[in-house]
Amino acid sequence: MTDVMTNGQTLAPNATIGILGGGQLGRMLSVAASRLGFKSHIYEPGANPPAGHVAETVTTAPYEDEAALRAFAESVDVVTYEFENVPTSALDLIESLVPIRPNRKALAVSQDRLVEKNFLRDLGLSVAPFAAVDDDLDLAEALLEIGAPAILKTRRFGYDGKGQARIMELSEADQALADMAGAPAVLEGFVDFSHEVSVIAARGQAGDISCFDPGENVHKSGILHTTTVPARLTPAQRTDAVLLAAKILNALDYVGVMGVELFVTSAGLVVNEIAPRVHNSGHWTQNGCVIDQFEQHIRAVAGWPLGDGKRHSNVEMLNLIGDDVDRIPEFAKDGSVAIHLYGKADVKPGRKMGHVNKITGAA
Amino acid sequence: MTDVMTNGQTLAPNATIGILGGGQLGRMLSVAASRLGFKSHIYEPGANPPAGHVAETVTTAPYEDEAALRAFAESVDVVTYEFENVPTSALDLIESLVPIRPNRKALAVSQDRLVEKNFLRDLGLSVAPFAAVDDDLDLAEALLEIGAPAILKTRRFGYDGKGQARIMELSEADQALADMAGAPAVLEGFVDFSHEVSVIAARGQAGDISCFDPGENVHKSGILHTTTVPARLTPAQRTDAVLLAAKILNALDYVGVMGVELFVTSAGLVVNEIAPRVHNSGHWTQNGCVIDQFEQHIRAVAGWPLGDGKRHSNVEMLNLIGDDVDRIPEFAKDGSVAIHLYGKADVKPGRKMGHVNKITGAA
Repeated sequence: MTDVMTNGQTLAPNATIGILGGGQLGRMLSVAASRLGFKSHIYEPGANPPAGHVAETVTTAPYEDEAALRAFAESVDVVTYEFENVPTSALDLIESLVPIRPNRKALAVSQDRLVEKNFLRDLGLSVAPFAAVDDDLDLAEALLEIGAPAILKTRRFGYDGKGQARIMELSEADQALADMAGAPAVLEGFVDFSHEVSVIAARGQAGDISCFDPGENVHKSGILHTTTVPARLTPAQRTDAVLLAAKILNALDYVGVMGVELFVTSAGLVVNEIAPRVHNSGHWTQNGCVIDQFEQHIRAVAGWPLGDGKRHSNVEMLNLIGDDVDRIPEFAKDGSVAIHLYGKADVKPGRKMGHVNKITGAA
Repeated sequence: MTDVMTNGQTLAPNATIGILGGGQLGRMLSVAASRLGFKSHIYEPGANPPAGHVAETVTTAPYEDEAALRAFAESVDVVTYEFENVPTSALDLIESLVPIRPNRKALAVSQDRLVEKNFLRDLGLSVAPFAAVDDDLDLAEALLEIGAPAILKTRRFGYDGKGQARIMELSEADQALADMAGAPAVLEGFVDFSHEVSVIAARGQAGDISCFDPGENVHKSGILHTTTVPARLTPAQRTDAVLLAAKILNALDYVGVMGVELFVTSAGLVVNEIAPRVHNSGHWTQNGCVIDQFEQHIRAVAGWPLGDGKRHSNVEMLNLIGDDVDRIPEFAKDGSVAIHLYGKADVKPGRKMGHVNKITGAA
């Protein structure tokens, strides 16, 4: 680590930000870093990562390569990440050499659904009924308590609906447990919600908090399909959403951007899950705000003041999954649509290829 | 050149755009290219160019290095440039291998003030009175015709007020000519203008034209200081500005973004100069429009449809020259200000270090 952490925790001009993960989130973080004059160094096991196209340096190495991790950590001034499933051993090594932001506590909580649920419940927030399931006995007990329909989820490494099995009737319990392939799991009760929203919240190094206006999310096949801003929320719900996000960030002494997914129910907001990073449901900020979620994250990590999250435009974000990219020529003709492609070489079903932000009016 | 120019002249997804010049304009072009899924390859003689931080590939070599130019041209699918003074020999070599956009005609016209003035006058556009000056006899004749005050400018390689000498009284003529150091020059008469505006105009491969709303420019020590949008213009002047820009682009069979600087006078608009590239006075579009001038240029070069140039916000762009970057902490606290830094290693007087776009309201 070069000596450029000056003014307390503020990153010096031209410093280098290390980013673990080279997907589209790392790519857009790297671009945001460049706007503030910082360089990026991407660490990614896979070859030719999307983030590498817009980064100063790319390290292609597995998370088990201690020499590569060490060289990476020594060449950057701070480390952040685009996904929460970085192996603990890699984080231990990196943290011995350079600060990691957001901190390890946020990662530990969000890497494990059971820890996360307990953390949120202990904060006094509403979550879906849940119970730990390690074996068939646990599952039987959990189903007695929670009932069906319910959903069984692996505690670790789940994303975009992966590692999940629905139990609509009790007869489906055995198959659901088999789907976990022996991995520790959590049974979650269904929440009767009208729609899902998410808050993209940020906390700076001084403890200041700034939230973007909540977006309303629609999923398709377990993957985010659209985010629409503004979301359908009462003024009271809007306030609740921001306050509970702030509670989570403060409890974790968090620095950076977090995505907080919320179910809207007649009894109030229920926290679905948190992601200690920039979030797909915050992509609309790129064309709706002066300072978007990517720059907000970089600002926090760099010790800068946060943007105020103000929205100048209403936006509908649409993810381009797999063949959806074939619609680009149509979107390119619409002057109210901003296109964001990730430069991925191959189109695959279910793969996030890009997104578009359609401006639907002034805020 | 790989075979990715499909659908007539449209660049294929994941194609690579070669950019001559690695300064801030190349940097922001590279970022815009990434948004559309393209990679960038920067060619720049100077070491550690700002654009290199966000480009897939950087070639560091002089414009006289034929092997480097050849390798560069062969590795990209189309070439564009961030500045108009690329040596002709380099362009000849590149053009034998890969298309250059905007085309050579635009470069030839804008590389030479005399050719440019004649071109604009022949189009029927108003320009300042001018005369070619190669020696003291020419200068004496030109001053008889145009009178003082006037300004002597080198025909080639002038920018940001460099290569210019004011002649306020006839007694200053000898010194002004000496300042040219023997370079061919042009004497230009002063134009009695109330203010300067510029039109950032774009033309696509199908001949379609799209202009951003004119911005009003204020210079300081010969360098652009602020651009404010909207500019003070009557509706008729606004129409004139767009029509004359279109006339220029069509006459050059232009593909890409051009900056057209105009003096506003009581007798109408007078063309000051044109720049066949993205332009400092168009930086406001990054935070005022869905599709900014950098993406507009990439769209044109890639054969995509152009954005419509619509503005969602009013903006004041302020250049950060030299020590102005010390004001960043102040700007960072203002949620209506978007910061754009260029990642230049050293602060020098007169050096463009970045700019800020302040949103002043909805359009």
